[in-house]
Amino acid sequence: MYYHDKRLQYPVTVTNPDPAFARSLQQAIGGVEGEIRVCMQYFFQAWGNRAPTTKYRDMLLNTATEEIGHIEMLATAVALNLDKAPAHLQEEGVKDSIVGAVMGGENPRHQIEGVIHKNLLSSGMAAMPMDSDGVPFNMSHIYASGNIAADMYCNVAAEATGRVLAVRLFNQAHDEGMKKMLHYMIARDTMHQNQWQAVIEELGGTAAALPVPNSFPQSAEDEQNNYNFYVTSLDGSYPEGRWTSGPSVDGKGEFTVFKNAPLGEEPNLGPARADSAAQSEQIGK
Amino acid sequence: MYYHDKRLQYPVTVTNPDPAFARSLQQAIGGVEGEIRVCMQYFFQAWGNRAPTTKYRDMLLNTATEEIGHIEMLATAVALNLDKAPAHLQEEGVKDSIVGAVMGGENPRHQIEGVIHKNLLSSGMAAMPMDSDGVPFNMSHIYASGNIAADMYCNVAAEATGRVLAVRLFNQAHDEGMKKMLHYMIARDTMHQNQWQAVIEELGGTAAALPVPNSFPQSAEDEQNNYNFYVTSLDGSYPEGRWTSGPSVDGKGEFTVFKNAPLGEEPNLGPARADSAAQSEQIGK
Amino acid sequence: MYYHDKRLQYPVTVTNPDPAFARSLQQAIGGVEGEIRVCMQYFFQAWGNRAPTTKYRDMLLNTATEEIGHIEMLATAVALNLDKAPAHLQEEGVKDSIVGAVMGGENPRHQIEGVIHKNLLSSGMAAMPMDSDGVPFNMSHIYASGNIAADMYCNVAAEATGRVLAVRLFNQAHDEGMKKMLHYMIARDTMHQNQWQAVIEELGGTAAALPVPNSFPQSAEDEQNNYNFYVTSLDGSYPEGRWTSGPSVDGKGEFTVFKNAPLGEEPNLGPARADSAAQSEQIGK
Amino acid sequence: MYYHDKRLQYPVTVTNPDPAFARSLQQAIGGVEGEIRVCMQYFFQAWGNRAPTTKYRDMLLNTATEEIGHIEMLATAVALNLDKAPAHLQEEGVKDSIVGAVMGGENPRHQIEGVIHKNLLSSGMAAMPMDSDGVPFNMSHIYASGNIAADMYCNVAAEATGRVLAVRLFNQAHDEGMKKMLHYMIARDTMHQNQWQAVIEELGGTAAALPVPNSFPQSAEDEQNNYNFYVTSLDGSYPEGRWTSGPSVDGKGEFTVFKNAPLGEEPNLGPARADSAAQSEQIGK
Amino acid sequence: MYYHDKRLQYPVTVTNPDPAFARSLQQAIGGVEGEIRVCMQYFFQAWGNRAPTTKYRDMLLNTATEEIGHIEMLATAVALNLDKAPAHLQEEGVKDSIVGAVMGGENPRHQIEGVIHKNLLSSGMAAMPMDSDGVPFNMSHIYASGNIAADMYCNVAAEATGRVLAVRLFNQAHDEGMKKMLHYMIARDTMHQNQWQAVIEELGGTAAALPVPNSFPQSAEDEQNNYNFYVTSLDGSYPEGRWTSGPSVDGKGEFTVFKNAPLGEEPNLGPARADSAAQSEQIGK
Amino acid sequence: MYYHDKRLQYPVTVTNPDPAFARSLQQAIGGVEGEIRVCMQYFFQAWGNRAPTTKYRDMLLNTATEEIGHIEMLATAVALNLDKAPAHLQEEGVKDSIVGAVMGGENPRHQIEGVIHKNLLSSGMAAMPMDSDGVPFNMSHIYASGNIAADMYCNVAAEATGRVLAVRLFNQAHDEGMKKMLHYMIARDTMHQNQWQAVIEELGGTAAALPVPNSFPQSAEDEQNNYNFYVTSLDGSYPEGRWTSGPSVDGKGEFTVFKNAPLGEEPNLGPARADSAAQSEQIGK
Repeated sequence: MYYHDKRLQYPVTVTNPDPAFARSLQQAIGGVEGEIRVCMQYFFQAWGNRAPTTKYRDMLLNTATEEIGHIEMLATAVALNLDKAPAHLQEEGVKDSIVGAVMGGENPRHQIEGVIHKNLLSSGMAAMPMDSDGVPFNMSHIYASGNIAADMYCNVAAEATGRVLAVRLFNQAHDEGMKKMLHYMIARDTMHQNQWQAVIEELGGTAAALPVPNSFPQSAEDEQNNYNFYVTSLDGSYPEGRWTSGPSVDGKGEFTVFKNAPLGEEPNLGPARADSAAQSEQIGK
Repeated sequence: MYYHDKRLQYPVTVTNPDPAFARSLQQAIGGVEGEIRVCMQYFFQAWGNRAPTTKYRDMLLNTATEEIGHIEMLATAVALNLDKAPAHLQEEGVKDSIVGAVMGGENPRHQIEGVIHKNLLSSGMAAMPMDSDGVPFNMSHIYASGNIAADMYCNVAAEATGRVLAVRLFNQAHDEGMKKMLHYMIARDTMHQNQWQAVIEELGGTAAALPVPNSFPQSAEDEQNNYNFYVTSLDGSYPEGRWTSGPSVDGKGEFTVFKNAPLGEEPNLGPARADSAAQSEQIGK
Repeated sequence: MYYHDKRLQYPVTVTNPDPAFARSLQQAIGGVEGEIRVCMQYFFQAWGNRAPTTKYRDMLLNTATEEIGHIEMLATAVALNLDKAPAHLQEEGVKDSIVGAVMGGENPRHQIEGVIHKNLLSSGMAAMPMDSDGVPFNMSHIYASGNIAADMYCNVAAEATGRVLAVRLFNQAHDEGMKKMLHYMIARDTMHQNQWQAVIEELGGTAAALPVPNSFPQSAEDEQNNYNFYVTSLDGSYPEGRWTSGPSVDGKGEFTVFKNAPLGEEPNLGPARADSAAQSEQIGK
Repeated sequence: MYYHDKRLQYPVTVTNPDPAFARSLQQAIGGVEGEIRVCMQYFFQAWGNRAPTTKYRDMLLNTATEEIGHIEMLATAVALNLDKAPAHLQEEGVKDSIVGAVMGGENPRHQIEGVIHKNLLSSGMAAMPMDSDGVPFNMSHIYASGNIAADMYCNVAAEATGRVLAVRLFNQAHDEGMKKMLHYMIARDTMHQNQWQAVIEELGGTAAALPVPNSFPQSAEDEQNNYNFYVTSLDGSYPEGRWTSGPSVDGKGEFTVFKNAPLGEEPNLGPARADSAAQSEQIGK
Repeated sequence: MYYHDKRLQYPVTVTNPDPAFARSLQQAIGGVEGEIRVCMQYFFQAWGNRAPTTKYRDMLLNTATEEIGHIEMLATAVALNLDKAPAHLQEEGVKDSIVGAVMGGENPRHQIEGVIHKNLLSSGMAAMPMDSDGVPFNMSHIYASGNIAADMYCNVAAEATGRVLAVRLFNQAHDEGMKKMLHYMIARDTMHQNQWQAVIEELGGTAAALPVPNSFPQSAEDEQNNYNFYVTSLDGSYPEGRWTSGPSVDGKGEFTVFKNAPLGEEPNLGPARADSAAQSEQIGK
Repeated sequence: MYYHDKRLQYPVTVTNPDPAFARSLQQAIGGVEGEIRVCMQYFFQAWGNRAPTTKYRDMLLNTATEEIGHIEMLATAVALNLDKAPAHLQEEGVKDSIVGAVMGGENPRHQIEGVIHKNLLSSGMAAMPMDSDGVPFNMSHIYASGNIAADMYCNVAAEATGRVLAVRLFNQAHDEGMKKMLHYMIARDTMHQNQWQAVIEELGGTAAALPVPNSFPQSAEDEQNNYNFYVTSLDGSYPEGRWTSGPSVDGKGEFTVFKNAPLGEEPNLGPARADSAAQSEQIGK
């Protein structure tokens, strides 16, 4: 179960509110590489964890719980950036507000509406669980496979795309408070990338973990086709690299190259059944 | 651009059609860990690849193109497994069909309908781009970040969850043809897990790649908070592991432990604006 | 604006309630080929219709309004089929209800739950705007392009897949009342398929309508590539048919065959920008 | 920011695992009336709350934090109910497991697969953030309008549908541990329904709150049409009730009845523009 | 079944077309608080209504039917506001159109495209069933629980958020015709908020209705935990209010305060099964 | 199975990158009328095709494979148009880049962010499988009914809306390279519209194909209601046209007009069950 402290994980301040930047921050809340995703992913991995020990469950709970605080920081940042967004044209202060100044031009209203539609119309100038284009977060992005190694790679992937996004937001930010908040979040992503890789290391490293799941005997897979790079180019050319020769990364095979060709036949499903609502011509005699 | 061969990548045969297994196979077509996902993910990563060389674009194109053939195999397998699914009760052969035999009981119709609704009603006993619960694939699962390392981790994650699924399907399968097809697909997933890790290795390995993106100077991130494991448990207890002490996996820091506490203050957004359609009580004086 | 009559468009009766059939009927309510789709599609086409005359707007309003009554009939049919679905095991009448009889076996509870989950748990044994797998209808399926011919083809497509579904439901139905209701709906689909084609005819027929939009001068399109069938098979073989030779259907060209080959070059997007959060290796110098 | 305790809010035990009931419980996790919804709804309302006081922000944070623990309990319950679900036919214990016993019949495998597809294939027998039909939770269901009264009514609605669901699950449950867990959750829903209504009362009650938003002057709305029940029936008949006569609930008007009739004219959008890709026939002269 | 009148419910006129405002209006069509939602919600509640009387079914049908006319009005308003939106740069009238005038600047084309993308590209300058960010309406927002009180609270919530949105649009509007249309719709929302509350009153008021469902005996819920406000703050502080002491709103209990603490134990799901495609390390001995 | 050639189907060049046009092009990639849709639709129709011959399967494979190349061209075009989009304000070249020039004004950053959010933040200036509003493509738009005529009409509809979109993009384009690419794609849409109609012709034409499915005996449908235009207008007026009199398009009936009226009765679902979590008042005695 869970507790809260009214104070924020890290200071969130905005000197110059910027509605367009609020929209960008939405990607870090409800984008597929955002904080709702990692928070819920770690929770569901923890709650469903099956292992001889509760150690990984515990670790995941710590980081999932930390991530709620990240969503909270970002939601606060969105609201602060929307603070002075004008609701209508006649509103005092539009022209001389920082927003007006940045926007310039005769009529800033339209641009602002174009940028922050739903945050203005639906939530009263607050954050929403959606991305920077207003697409609501879809929980199918919570990856929790029941396999600890697969889950750790999903987590590394989530934190890698998450830190890429945070860096892009940092580059885009122009308010000191926002840059400060992001430089903290970027740091936490560094830790989390390392943390999930540390689990892999603890489990023996990449070579031991691969191929995931390592509990399936490789003798049961097609051993003619498990370490060859398939070339599908028409002329047979291909890019040479670490993946075309030498020992495989998991140390259990040797990379080779295979010019792809069909091993099967043309499928023929035959005529449709009389009662399947096909056209008569499909049913045949 | 692209070419096709009418023949399949690998033989797909079904001796004993099983509509319930057809539904399970749908997860490998349109599930978030399925083949449409990896196919389209590699294509979009290839088409958007920016690098001094086209080498990774080329490699991605080879594997993306290979994956179309995997969707095709699975779609064929679904259709073959639905082959004898009865469209209605009176249909001849229901009782003595293999399906009837497996199902047993007086009236197999209802179970079958419960299992394969949309494949029966919407597609005429064919595969659909949806998962085993009939949820259509949503293209937001195509991860292509523009960062080659982030993308490779996304690909390892996709192939790890993909092979986990394929092994579960293999365990569930009882038809020899299906087991054969899956033992091939499991092998290809082994290769692809190794292949994406091989790119990481070629780029210097995990330590060189992390933290992703490695082009952002770590001096600009919060160096007090980038290698400490945050403990959020009320009593301060935490699971010790590779992530609580010792050098970080990227070799750029030292893991430590931090008992989490708020560094920020309670946020206060203040009263609502008079023109924002809040309740009067929110607007204040 | 709109009016209602409490009575149904056509009688809906169910003698032997069947929860599994209720689930099948959901496809005709909230499936992509269902009645919500056509109803809303015709309404949005009507409301956005731009033409020298309001004639097509009028016609579309008539049929859109008719379709509300079809959703109502199906929703009633779903509720009636769920009428005796047991909410829990101990309920009287489960064993001797028609449902129990059809299901047979020791414990029908599980099968029923498996089949009708959300209709039981979420709506209290009523219809919901979702398909037979419980996937909610998504309004992106309302096609209204602003081009009258494109819209008519979308409507023919909707009614064709709709009638295919209705026939499959008719084949699956075993209750006389349900068969009667469906034989009426199938008839209406016949009319509507003819009706939308009649608009095409009134506008001069297929040859006049194609290529849609017919207001774009064909001299502005690539006249080397507008009537040739592209062959992508590796060996150049292709299926001959009406589409490989002879005058095109629109009478404005001659069908030919083209063995596909690249007309463009390999794209090269070059290195990533230094500030784009790519890996260092992608950025080049 | 947030803390956790490894222990559960309330005991969760399952004596007789039941995979079908696990699926039903999914509705309470990821259904639109489930716990993820209320948890995230209260958090986003709290984080975006604008008022002269932080009082409501505080209250919302307490209950949002409580709700995380409810998701956790349900996720644990799902995992425990899936505990003995067979992964394949040959597995020992299928026949004599409680699941096998309940299911009866020759081959329980198919029914089980039909019921728990994704929980088996995708998550390794764990809970997922989806509903009982496998549809992932969509965050557009997080209602947070920026108006405190509107939000409270959204919360009452969420807890009312939530308790309806919990009662249905209680009625369906047959395991004592599950009944115990649900009798606790039903109690919490009772409190929460009362709690959100208590806010309305504190703000002056229904009459003071309505019409929401109460900050918009009613003199600016159409005072001829704000308290009359519109009758759309063809024959003018209508159901009399509290809403057809007497003072309005908000005490600011008098209910009357209006036989609906168009107050506007037929709209005519006129011909399409020449450059809008309409058919020629739509463009006119 | 249903009838239509070609004339609109209320006059819709636009003197100064404004493409940006058209986009805002989309929120009232296909937003989660928009008119498609209430229309379909009332229809599905009516069609599935189970009660000793058809009275509520009748009432719901009247208002659902009224709401179709609201969608129609808004769709007309969107089309009229898009009327002069330029399709391309060279088009005559761009520079001196009202749109050009409002936008100012050298090249209004880009802003307009940014604002109205899909209404321009997909529908030929017409309304679409999506929100102001172009997200299609998802029918999972149709709440119809089978419990009349829960449904009425859902309806109050829908009309409260709906009127909040309408007021925001009214504040944003600058065209007299649009303000007139909205002042009518705001009035209808006032009626509908009162109407659904009137049903609650007719059923005995809040105290009689709560806790929903009132047909479940409260003696079966956990009577130690049904009227206490849970405090999750680390330091035990909490906001006092109507919800912390005094009789509960439903009059069936007494509000108290409970400093939250775990009542359950740490869950332990134990090792993974050998056949579940977990990592070897999870399976244990 | 499939092969690729690194070169593009047709040249894609961009002289003046335009981030706003990149966003418009996204509609042709991931819009419901875009290229992912047709590509996947033809593949799934091919893979599930049941007929006495594999001829249509073959034809569909050729065109599906061609369409992958179209997605590739558009993805390349999006990336090229994003080439010089500034990631942050300070970046050199913003002011004098073509983008800056077109945008004018003091600070182009905000407009650009408003237009291209996700392409900038999530994909590193590359195409994504989403539409021009950032909504990800949803695979439920892949129509493959198992009925060859229904599928062909779906394909005509897809290519008709597709060409309408391509023409709108052509009208909007101002770069010669983009106009050239689009004039090629428009031509291919011309061919494909003709191609699918050619299949209908080969199967006997519209009269033979309708009503789809033509394998259902029309004697089993309601022959009183299959060729009459239903009039729902209150006053009985209706628009006369090809659909109100004369032989039906399929030649199997005669169009007539029917003033709509209810043929059924008012449905009455009766009281709710005691165990269904309805309100007590619904349950009756």
